[in-house]
Amino acid sequence: MQNVLASIITIGDELLIGQTIDTNSAWLAQQLNSLGILLKYRVAVGDNAADILAAMEHAQGISDVIIITGGLGPTSDDITKPTLCKYFGATLVENKKVLEHITAFFEKRNRQMIASNIAQANVPDNCEVLFNTYGTAPGMLFRKQKKIFISLPGVPLEMKTIMEEFGLAAIANSFETNSIQHLSLSTAGRGESFVAVMLQEFEQNLPENIKLAYLPKLGALTLRLTGVNTSAELLQLQYEKLHQLVKPYCYALQDISLAETILQLFAQKDLTLSTAESCTGGAIANAVTNISGSSAIFKGAIVCYSNFAKIKILGVDEDIIKTYTTYSEETATAMSKQCVAVLDTNYAIAITGQIEKTETIDSFAWIAVSSQSRQKAIKVPLPYAREKNKELAVNLALNFLRVFVLEDLN
Amino acid sequence: MQNVLASIITIGDELLIGQTIDTNSAWLAQQLNSLGILLKYRVAVGDNAADILAAMEHAQGISDVIIITGGLGPTSDDITKPTLCKYFGATLVENKKVLEHITAFFEKRNRQMIASNIAQANVPDNCEVLFNTYGTAPGMLFRKQKKIFISLPGVPLEMKTIMEEFGLAAIANSFETNSIQHLSLSTAGRGESFVAVMLQEFEQNLPENIKLAYLPKLGALTLRLTGVNTSAELLQLQYEKLHQLVKPYCYALQDISLAETILQLFAQKDLTLSTAESCTGGAIANAVTNISGSSAIFKGAIVCYSNFAKIKILGVDEDIIKTYTTYSEETATAMSKQCVAVLDTNYAIAITGQIEKTETIDSFAWIAVSSQSRQKAIKVPLPYAREKNKELAVNLALNFLRVFVLEDLN
Repeated sequence: MQNVLASIITIGDELLIGQTIDTNSAWLAQQLNSLGILLKYRVAVGDNAADILAAMEHAQGISDVIIITGGLGPTSDDITKPTLCKYFGATLVENKKVLEHITAFFEKRNRQMIASNIAQANVPDNCEVLFNTYGTAPGMLFRKQKKIFISLPGVPLEMKTIMEEFGLAAIANSFETNSIQHLSLSTAGRGESFVAVMLQEFEQNLPENIKLAYLPKLGALTLRLTGVNTSAELLQLQYEKLHQLVKPYCYALQDISLAETILQLFAQKDLTLSTAESCTGGAIANAVTNISGSSAIFKGAIVCYSNFAKIKILGVDEDIIKTYTTYSEETATAMSKQCVAVLDTNYAIAITGQIEKTETIDSFAWIAVSSQSRQKAIKVPLPYAREKNKELAVNLALNFLRVFVLEDLN
Repeated sequence: MQNVLASIITIGDELLIGQTIDTNSAWLAQQLNSLGILLKYRVAVGDNAADILAAMEHAQGISDVIIITGGLGPTSDDITKPTLCKYFGATLVENKKVLEHITAFFEKRNRQMIASNIAQANVPDNCEVLFNTYGTAPGMLFRKQKKIFISLPGVPLEMKTIMEEFGLAAIANSFETNSIQHLSLSTAGRGESFVAVMLQEFEQNLPENIKLAYLPKLGALTLRLTGVNTSAELLQLQYEKLHQLVKPYCYALQDISLAETILQLFAQKDLTLSTAESCTGGAIANAVTNISGSSAIFKGAIVCYSNFAKIKILGVDEDIIKTYTTYSEETATAMSKQCVAVLDTNYAIAITGQIEKTETIDSFAWIAVSSQSRQKAIKVPLPYAREKNKELAVNLALNFLRVFVLEDLN
């Protein structure tokens, strides 16, 4: 076993002028990590041959795996590819298979190919071509002094697919790495600092080769144990201890979203769901329907962004809104009851509130959940800006529903 | 005027294991850019003194402004601060004003201070302390050989506030930089490569100090002209030429989303909107309600994720669905007509389709828009994975509505 290290070089002027937020590096770091490879160095350079060469030389000096992303679009690969040729002593040659793929790509979309698209089929003659299912720029793998370089397009979907289909296997087959194992669990209902205090002693007593990581989301928190060269049994033992400590807040013994957990639970029990959303404006429905297979469980939503919609479509009694106001426990509860009835589902979530802070009112929401026989409501503060508040409210509502459904099932 | 260059060093193990996506760098790059400072180099290193020192030395060699973010939390500043002291030949001393701020910070939140919190008040004795309104880790500014180093906490809100309150002004006052001006416009309806062909000649004939950038989104494309040391008139002249060339596709003379444009147009003309969403599952409503002020225009959505909801809540004639299928022009059109009627709005968008590719069917959607007097529908291919297809469908639908409304207004 050896300590295998990696570097990521991101190419593109768009990164240096702040046009693009780099999400590729985090994904790549996670993937390399799960292969037992640690990221040592991450650098972004512009579309500039000298800077690219300097970054490659530096990365080669300190790491074994060098991933290069970006700089391969039809408007920028006239810099990156000749630079790769220079570094690896190669010549650009047209690759027939890639050219056929590009031609088919444009034909299928009824779009005209231009010279710069055809040029994307040119690759250095000493690379292994990594086929790009979703785009026109191929990935390229080079080997030099026992080190692996992989050049990838910067488009996240294309980059990920090439790595999943070819790149990660090529890396795994080339090095005998440390064994790294992860075990995660997901919690909701308590913030990071609260949980950190609960786990202080546990964390201090962990064996040296097992580490605890906090991965906070808005309204949820994933905990991850990572063992380096440790036995599966030892890691499992610590994981069970961790689980006992956070049991009241744990919603899944893996790193998944609350929406996925709800859908799994509802699928197991053959239950159906609907939502009545005022201040979240469809964000709960959107989160649930982002998940494959949701149509078997989720029957629909009424986004009642006006009292007119609350009364006329959802059928909330106008007097309730007049008596208790729009943002009240009574209105939220009536919304959830009506939602179960109108959309004919086993459960419904309703939410109404002030999503954006004003000069006089702090933002908050009333969340109500309902089955065909009972209801429950909660008032939650929403301390962030508009979009973050929506995201937080989605998770608070889904967790409130989860606990409510478990009460029925237990 | 001088060419002032900057580097960003990001410190933190969490960046190297992929826990965190770095959004700070893009924001910093934009801010520096607007001061006329170009980012030359961006690097991420772990919580490791040798790597931090090497990155600082390299950055000092190639740039004038060095921004260091992260590594200042209560659990990691025992590495970063001593490293800064070593680099700048300083000693850590307790700063009274910072300590008072930290103490007040904990008192206000009713939380107990621990030793590592108190230690956050220790700063190198030769730095200018940049006060942190929203957190406990102060920013620090160092000057060395006519270069400026600014060390900032990694929490985005804290980092941004310190830069806005102190950092950017300190940088602007220390260098006489190039003048950089941007003019943007947003387009929809044509992809990046199509527009690139249209603009090939325009781009080739641009004066040397004006550059064109493509900022693609799913279903939209922003174009940005950047002038370095050019007159406002000259930039405006090129911008008008650009506008003429892309006029049929241009939806805004600034860099804004389609949802924002629709809301502006509807506000001007005092119009209202609703949506009937099947395959997007509330994503259009979510995008529209992400924008402040949307409640005056957007009345609600019916997310009909089942034929039951399409028929019973939206009131679509069951025979239409039976005769033409759920994913048809006729069903989409009926949905949009019913949406206008049921939610009583001037316009409605309806969408129905196959959001996820299966082994036998490529994903696609029928989008229909409706006013109180007419309808129009379009079939669009959705070539990506589930979530991206939803995002693309949202923009295609909003742009289809925009063109439809403009037909009525012209």
